[in-house]
Amino acid sequence: MNQQRLNRVIDKMKMEGFEELIISAPNAIYYLLDEMFSPGERLLTLYVNTSGVHKLLINALFPNAKGLDTEVIFYNDKEDPVQILSDMMTLKGKVGIDKEWPSHFLIRLMEKQNQMKIGVGSICVDYPRMLKDADEIKKMRHASQINDTVMSHVAELLGDNQLSEKELQKKIPELFEQYETFEVSFTPSVSYGDHTAIPHHESDQTKSVGPEALLIDMGGRTNGYCSDMTRSFYRGEPSEKYREVYNIVLKANLAGIAAVKPGVSVKTVDAAARKVIEEAGYGDYFTHRTGHGIGIEVHEFPDVSSASEMILEPGMTFSVEPGIYLPDEFGVRIEDIVLVTEAGCEVLNQYPKELKSF
Amino acid sequence: MNQQRLNRVIDKMKMEGFEELIISAPNAIYYLLDEMFSPGERLLTLYVNTSGVHKLLINALFPNAKGLDTEVIFYNDKEDPVQILSDMMTLKGKVGIDKEWPSHFLIRLMEKQNQMKIGVGSICVDYPRMLKDADEIKKMRHASQINDTVMSHVAELLGDNQLSEKELQKKIPELFEQYETFEVSFTPSVSYGDHTAIPHHESDQTKSVGPEALLIDMGGRTNGYCSDMTRSFYRGEPSEKYREVYNIVLKANLAGIAAVKPGVSVKTVDAAARKVIEEAGYGDYFTHRTGHGIGIEVHEFPDVSSASEMILEPGMTFSVEPGIYLPDEFGVRIEDIVLVTEAGCEVLNQYPKELKSF
Repeated sequence: MNQQRLNRVIDKMKMEGFEELIISAPNAIYYLLDEMFSPGERLLTLYVNTSGVHKLLINALFPNAKGLDTEVIFYNDKEDPVQILSDMMTLKGKVGIDKEWPSHFLIRLMEKQNQMKIGVGSICVDYPRMLKDADEIKKMRHASQINDTVMSHVAELLGDNQLSEKELQKKIPELFEQYETFEVSFTPSVSYGDHTAIPHHESDQTKSVGPEALLIDMGGRTNGYCSDMTRSFYRGEPSEKYREVYNIVLKANLAGIAAVKPGVSVKTVDAAARKVIEEAGYGDYFTHRTGHGIGIEVHEFPDVSSASEMILEPGMTFSVEPGIYLPDEFGVRIEDIVLVTEAGCEVLNQYPKELKSF
Repeated sequence: MNQQRLNRVIDKMKMEGFEELIISAPNAIYYLLDEMFSPGERLLTLYVNTSGVHKLLINALFPNAKGLDTEVIFYNDKEDPVQILSDMMTLKGKVGIDKEWPSHFLIRLMEKQNQMKIGVGSICVDYPRMLKDADEIKKMRHASQINDTVMSHVAELLGDNQLSEKELQKKIPELFEQYETFEVSFTPSVSYGDHTAIPHHESDQTKSVGPEALLIDMGGRTNGYCSDMTRSFYRGEPSEKYREVYNIVLKANLAGIAAVKPGVSVKTVDAAARKVIEEAGYGDYFTHRTGHGIGIEVHEFPDVSSASEMILEPGMTFSVEPGIYLPDEFGVRIEDIVLVTEAGCEVLNQYPKELKSF
């Protein structure tokens, strides 16, 4: 158990008025126990109460829980883990429930404890996770450095122009594996031509013929922490319009990053990037939020959007990724991961951002 | 909307005492609407009540819902979909909740409707899904035929003996793609040597040196329906002990299949396979249930275990997969998919089961 992180979870429980907390998300448990479990459909719960009592309840099929320096309660397939959980609860106050806990567990727990007061309790872990500690910052930096290296390889492959979107998409996880990164943060996005104008385009058999826009959005999970970066390229001589849009997006990306410092709100960052695009007349074509928190998961609390009043603090890591998408023409997005520091901001990935064409 | 399937869902709702049903699992919605949605963290609900009213509530980011012959209610990121859902409910009786619905939706719905009576309602879809109709049976047959073909390719690759467990594991989805099967039912299991004794072994960099046991467990999802088959092979001349164990497992597999016919209980099938292994003295080494339902998902209702009183009916499809696992030595499992017919049983996959060595 990482006692420092647990203390921060308990502090947040007190602030939010929760007496007990049911943590079931494997990534949240990983944050506290430094061990990843994939329980499938079986119940997995880290139980925490504000007195500091904490117990892991897990099926006996996962013997890797044996080495933990935490009380572990194993159950087998013939036992009812919801009853075991119910028996360990104090019910002295409100119980925080993990936002992702499958409803059938909650319904059965409520049947056993019909006076139980509940609320969604995930913020008690999501909030501490938002503020990365020294060990996490080191891992976040390392993950982004590897993403830089893999992006160079991807750019070489784009230059060779042998691979379809789908083929390059499948190649990327293999490139990450060469750098001790055995998981991608998400299925890499590889788009050619007018597909770049569709932010969630599914890579297909399309080959690149050019002249046309190219877009790569990718990240890996290294030592448990995620990277995420988007770069936009061009095959052939970029058109005037592409150059114009590229430069606006780059300016928006830099403006967003320049706004990052402790004490300002998240929505200020969104506004700084958005303003550049709006003033250039492309506001209607920047169709998504400016970014998202990142850490153990590629999408974490908080949203970097116009709706978020969250105040930036040192240790927060999130993406700044403005884009302009012109339907049936092309799209450009430039995404970096930033770390809020005492002095302002550190950009974790360093792959160049000047317009590169092949 | 597949009206016939919807009628069966409503019949089951009445039997189970549910007035309204919240269906959120994408696979359950696919069963009724023949369209797959991947909503990520956003709310997706097919609402059904026993009067036959049904509505799909989905985020506007999923425009493929527009073509459905069903009432579709789109919401955007600025609206509260739980409020919209709450407003459409009648609350005349008990509400069935999808077993996998993330708790935060349920908690917020309960906050809005604090008199609501709820229960886990998934059986209302899981039960109809268990009994495949003619169209589904055709697709299940086709998926298993493709699995047979891919297994022949895998056996050739095992014969060539170039690939590590991990390399062969990664090759299998590519083989399926040649047969219009763009998704595997689950990550294929490829085990060499004493790894075959670990039912959930994670394939690694191990190469096969022999003489040793080999085990392949794999399936693909073709036109929305899953196949699943295990075959055990040997590299080199099989030892006496391996031959003995192989023949016991094969006999257990055939005994399980022979027990399949309408009117008998699921646990009879489990007992028939288990008895062969127990009588041969290996009962302690058959450590799992005999099988599982299969269809749109590779693991569906019901379990084929000693605990299931479910009576077999024509249209049910499930696996029969006894195994013997001798720690640090080897394991053997032989798995087929069966369809319960009026006359008894049809085995959907046909890849040979006599002991094959390379």
